[in-house]
Amino acid sequence: MSRFFSELYASAQPYTPGEQPRDRSYVKLNTNENPFPPSTEALSYTTVKTFLRPLNLYSDPESQELREALANSLGVAPENVLPGNGSDEILNFAFMAFCSPSRGVAFPDVTYGFYAVLAGLYGIDTKLVPLREDFSVGAEDYFGLGRTIFLANPNAPTGLALPAEEIGRVAGANPDNVVVVDEAYVDFGGESCVPLTQRYNNLLVVQTFSKSRSMAGARLGFAVGDAALIADLNRIKYAVNPYNVNSMTAAMGIATLNDPDYTLTNCAAIVTARLYLTSQLRARDFEVLESSANFVFAKSPDFGGEALYAGLKEKGVLVRHFAKPERIADYVRISVGTREQLDALLAAIDTLREELP
Amino acid sequence: MSRFFSELYASAQPYTPGEQPRDRSYVKLNTNENPFPPSTEALSYTTVKTFLRPLNLYSDPESQELREALANSLGVAPENVLPGNGSDEILNFAFMAFCSPSRGVAFPDVTYGFYAVLAGLYGIDTKLVPLREDFSVGAEDYFGLGRTIFLANPNAPTGLALPAEEIGRVAGANPDNVVVVDEAYVDFGGESCVPLTQRYNNLLVVQTFSKSRSMAGARLGFAVGDAALIADLNRIKYAVNPYNVNSMTAAMGIATLNDPDYTLTNCAAIVTARLYLTSQLRARDFEVLESSANFVFAKSPDFGGEALYAGLKEKGVLVRHFAKPERIADYVRISVGTREQLDALLAAIDTLREELP
Repeated sequence: MSRFFSELYASAQPYTPGEQPRDRSYVKLNTNENPFPPSTEALSYTTVKTFLRPLNLYSDPESQELREALANSLGVAPENVLPGNGSDEILNFAFMAFCSPSRGVAFPDVTYGFYAVLAGLYGIDTKLVPLREDFSVGAEDYFGLGRTIFLANPNAPTGLALPAEEIGRVAGANPDNVVVVDEAYVDFGGESCVPLTQRYNNLLVVQTFSKSRSMAGARLGFAVGDAALIADLNRIKYAVNPYNVNSMTAAMGIATLNDPDYTLTNCAAIVTARLYLTSQLRARDFEVLESSANFVFAKSPDFGGEALYAGLKEKGVLVRHFAKPERIADYVRISVGTREQLDALLAAIDTLREELP
Repeated sequence: MSRFFSELYASAQPYTPGEQPRDRSYVKLNTNENPFPPSTEALSYTTVKTFLRPLNLYSDPESQELREALANSLGVAPENVLPGNGSDEILNFAFMAFCSPSRGVAFPDVTYGFYAVLAGLYGIDTKLVPLREDFSVGAEDYFGLGRTIFLANPNAPTGLALPAEEIGRVAGANPDNVVVVDEAYVDFGGESCVPLTQRYNNLLVVQTFSKSRSMAGARLGFAVGDAALIADLNRIKYAVNPYNVNSMTAAMGIATLNDPDYTLTNCAAIVTARLYLTSQLRARDFEVLESSANFVFAKSPDFGGEALYAGLKEKGVLVRHFAKPERIADYVRISVGTREQLDALLAAIDTLREELP
């Protein structure tokens, strides 16, 4: 870093996105993207027409229409919703709003890596709560911590989900702290806590259009919660980036919400493909966690995680490997692609096994 | 704010965007938008096609192609450029990277209000440097301040510009601090400091696609400077929002850069319209500052700033009024729209004058 760089953030560790190599074309199963294009409604000329010409005008800083569409689809009021430039931006706002020198944070030792990045950036005192032996999140482990809590549900990269009621128990047991539930993967088999936000005014749900709604490239996420929590996030938003959601993304988000069947159909297809992938991997003696997400977390009987990742990459298939913490180093995370992509993965695994000495 | 809100940001004052009332349709001359639609190249089916289908995939966190296109158009290298979700996001990154408890900030007492919002949010010690009597920025007033400096050039809401060489003198006189030059309005008659970034490694230029490039609704801004400064900003970006620029905006930005004549033609039309507006206002005895931007800052002989703003709004024309500081309270800022919009404004002013007792 340069000699001008702030001492406050000097020890910040940046987030490492999944690799996007350009040297050749890969079967890309490493970033949990949806293999299907966005909703035909979102791609229609009608939608595109509405957003292209008036792009010379500022986007609505209130994202009023998008908030109304989200509120309708979620069964809450517009003041319970805040859209952001991807759910990462919302998570950043939540860290700024609800963590501080006097209020630390807690999250699982194995979870979405971005929480640790944000905690490190802002120097927030962090308690890592170990996952249980079976990689599940134990709700009781979060009772009365006196900290803001971040839980991904389903969790990443394990794919394991808690019932919403368990998250509700965490919120109920921490009435003086905010519990943030990151539901990036909830539409693939999890149970949403959105209805519980009306019971617990300290429960904030974060969702994204990047996974079930096939809009990762458009950058759209949102928070749902008590109006006071949303007002807090807005306070941060209006101080750091008032026009955070662009007009094109807002229009596509609304169109996608108007076409819920498309999303449901794709999610069902991905769940079916996940079951296929899980059984095929188990037939090859992999240990595969019960996933409620659009990826599986799996351990090969023949290869360490790093070796399997590297071998598959050489065969043109990208999966994700996390070297740390050590207890997950033998696993790889495989995004659930199309049936063709999954068959290419399985063929590559079979070839690697045949090549074993 | 809720009882969960961080004590760090409790005194933050949010930025107030220009009003976007929905009660009726207005001639909207209050937010310095470009009256022309985006480049036909950006709106073409070829461009739209490239970005719509693959939206299920993440945008490139490096914005590689966009950075290359920007670098080509600016005559710098890709490592000298960082795109952001609007220049506001870049300004936020710059505040985080280059201001801190040990390094305060300085900017004019009359300038873009967002600097004060960011300084307030982060609790940065702030020195407001008064504009000269004629509303100009005095370069010498910024020599050796021992602070990070933010200068809008042309300045807002005055529209007055300094020659690039004057900004260079500020950078040269503050070798141990970063000088950020916000060139949001530079294409309407200012002189860019981009070439000077190769001479001063502490000079950071920020530009936007919101004004000259007609893309306010798409949210695209960028920083240009020494590779070490850009790396600092990237460090912040990868800690708060790695995928900050969405794929659609990146594609439209590249298409717009491929069509420079369109931008130049529109800027020329806006400069012509600004001269027309200036002379028409002066013919009505307004005091009008010499603008190098796509707005004019003007004082009526008949109405205070607040009264003129309110009178025009009632007649269906929106302009912007700033009540503070007091020395600008008699002025209004009028965006340079189309000739038709300006004639509607002038007609409204004439009616208001006729209605005077």
